[in-house]
Amino acid sequence: MTNLIDNEVFLAFSTYAAIVIVKMMLMGPLTGYYRITRGAFANEEDLGKTKDKKLLRTHPDVERVRRCHQNDLENVLPFVLIGLLYSLTVPELGTALLHFRLFVASRIFHTVAYVAALPQPSRGLSYILGLLITFSMTYRVLSMVLLL
Amino acid sequence: MTNLIDNEVFLAFSTYAAIVIVKMMLMGPLTGYYRITRGAFANEEDLGKTKDKKLLRTHPDVERVRRCHQNDLENVLPFVLIGLLYSLTVPELGTALLHFRLFVASRIFHTVAYVAALPQPSRGLSYILGLLITFSMTYRVLSMVLLL
Amino acid sequence: MTNLIDNEVFLAFSTYAAIVIVKMMLMGPLTGYYRITRGAFANEEDLGKTKDKKLLRTHPDVERVRRCHQNDLENVLPFVLIGLLYSLTVPELGTALLHFRLFVASRIFHTVAYVAALPQPSRGLSYILGLLITFSMTYRVLSMVLLL
Repeated sequence: MTNLIDNEVFLAFSTYAAIVIVKMMLMGPLTGYYRITRGAFANEEDLGKTKDKKLLRTHPDVERVRRCHQNDLENVLPFVLIGLLYSLTVPELGTALLHFRLFVASRIFHTVAYVAALPQPSRGLSYILGLLITFSMTYRVLSMVLLL
Repeated sequence: MTNLIDNEVFLAFSTYAAIVIVKMMLMGPLTGYYRITRGAFANEEDLGKTKDKKLLRTHPDVERVRRCHQNDLENVLPFVLIGLLYSLTVPELGTALLHFRLFVASRIFHTVAYVAALPQPSRGLSYILGLLITFSMTYRVLSMVLLL
Repeated sequence: MTNLIDNEVFLAFSTYAAIVIVKMMLMGPLTGYYRITRGAFANEEDLGKTKDKKLLRTHPDVERVRRCHQNDLENVLPFVLIGLLYSLTVPELGTALLHFRLFVASRIFHTVAYVAALPQPSRGLSYILGLLITFSMTYRVLSMVLLL
């Protein structure tokens, strides 16, 4: 391994980044599952042998999973990118772990709250928590590296 | 700090990357603001106490902000990833700063042009400028690291 | 160059990451091409001199390219982020090249299959192949760096 990942913060970052990216990517197969079980497809070539064009439609359950996936793209990807820069500023391990663990927990809870349509403000709060954690890491990055 | 960010190009990259990622993430709360002020929600559990299902609709202003956010995902995330590789090729600081500053300026202008619906080609040109800057950095990366 | 990219795996990663990101970004101009040739726009200010509001509509060809672009965001960006961490674990060059080449090939084929509406399971299999490659790299990352 290169010396870059000799430090524990970077190991922790890699671990949590990998976990939350896998969680995000699983929204793809989940969308496929809902498309098949709800019979709601986006492409004619996906209809299979039935070729029933009535299945070229949207379904609330499919759209819900897709919105959840989209929210992941909007929040998980920035977390990973900012988290990478944050790790390079070599923060204290305990502080870093607190950020990483809370973020991953908030996004797993966000997914459950979204897909299961839990009453608000459960989903809203988990979204805001994730946002604040990423902003907190961004603040550290900017205060350490600022070169405009 | 690790030696990776001992060089000024990487400090400048981290600064501009953090700024443009925060700009992108702020589209989330802005979408929320438009959803509430325009009364256009995507999820039943977001309707609050009124439970007025007529508010489960799209609104042009909300969709406009969402398209702007989507365009950010499509352009800001590639910029940050390519910019990271570009910074590791240790370009001249002046050249790198020119790329980073122009990109961030082009995306901030793009957001203003999109959300305020400025007449074209203002938005189109700022989009193309951002694209060309990322391609210019990609050219440098490929010419320095090519290993197929 | 910094010592980080003294190793061949990182050079190979940078090369393939740059290629697949450029491929993804080209979906933007392709969407523009379809919008103009099919006459299907999303914003009033994009209509040009005709100002024909009937052109504010969706078109199946435009939506198809946009879904392909979206699938790239959902898969290419995670590949690049996981691939970066994977490269830092210094795998064997041959193994790494196999991952990178297969992924890039699978995504180029996926784009052709999507835009040209090839019969299934061509698109589905190329999507799943890309997913499995990213999961394989994630497994390596987690087995090397795990720090929870």
